[in-house]
Amino acid sequence: MTAYDPSNIFAKILRGELPAHRVYEDDRALAFLDIMPRAPGHTLVIPKNPARNILDIDADDLGHVAGIAQRIARAGMKAFAADGITVQQFNETAGGQVVFHLHVHVIPRHDGVALRPAATYKASNEELAAAAEKIRAALKNL
Amino acid sequence: MTAYDPSNIFAKILRGELPAHRVYEDDRALAFLDIMPRAPGHTLVIPKNPARNILDIDADDLGHVAGIAQRIARAGMKAFAADGITVQQFNETAGGQVVFHLHVHVIPRHDGVALRPAATYKASNEELAAAAEKIRAALKNL
Repeated sequence: MTAYDPSNIFAKILRGELPAHRVYEDDRALAFLDIMPRAPGHTLVIPKNPARNILDIDADDLGHVAGIAQRIARAGMKAFAADGITVQQFNETAGGQVVFHLHVHVIPRHDGVALRPAATYKASNEELAAAAEKIRAALKNL
Repeated sequence: MTAYDPSNIFAKILRGELPAHRVYEDDRALAFLDIMPRAPGHTLVIPKNPARNILDIDADDLGHVAGIAQRIARAGMKAFAADGITVQQFNETAGGQVVFHLHVHVIPRHDGVALRPAATYKASNEELAAAAEKIRAALKNL
């Protein structure tokens, strides 16, 4: 498979070269808001170690990312009074992947509300900042 | 959240009360083919312990399921000469969940081929048996 390319935008976020609305961080993972949310609170969880996708990530890193996705899911339920959570993880272009650093989408859902199609809506900084604050607060009270 | 209901069909598969095209099994997880595949090789990975979804699963079980999903993804790439893998995991009805035992969808993808809409195509036993054999063979040669 194609080698990891450290010029991807999530690697730049990890290096602090691009800003992000961060909601959680530890030594192995980072969670931040998708700037083109398919629903309010749409969060991405990524490993800090370089990994293109599920095909090459270290299994321990994947397990850690899954655990953080679980915490983000629980926080998203509370923060947005959600009715459910959709988790997606895309691998290679054919699998739906656009940014080639592994990321898990965690999307709060409400009954009867369809997901926005991908990449159709860019949230404002204000909207993202408010959503991030809600998630951070919910994470503290899990 | 709603309590786990042991009458769901995946619990029946785990108890051997319903058949399934099994591709992988260990003491904590089972992987078998979705009988309504959105693409050939569409596999479900489930924990053996009861868990409704990501909101209540034990974190260690989730990490284990994620690791098995990774192995199934790698096997699916080989078994179907796939170009990518789509992973989905739905939680509660609003999140897209239909069967209330946690399951991770691992779907081999090919460039330019859209997913079938969910629940629109029921594969024959012959098709599923052939796909399962391909995945089992690929798992042996990862």
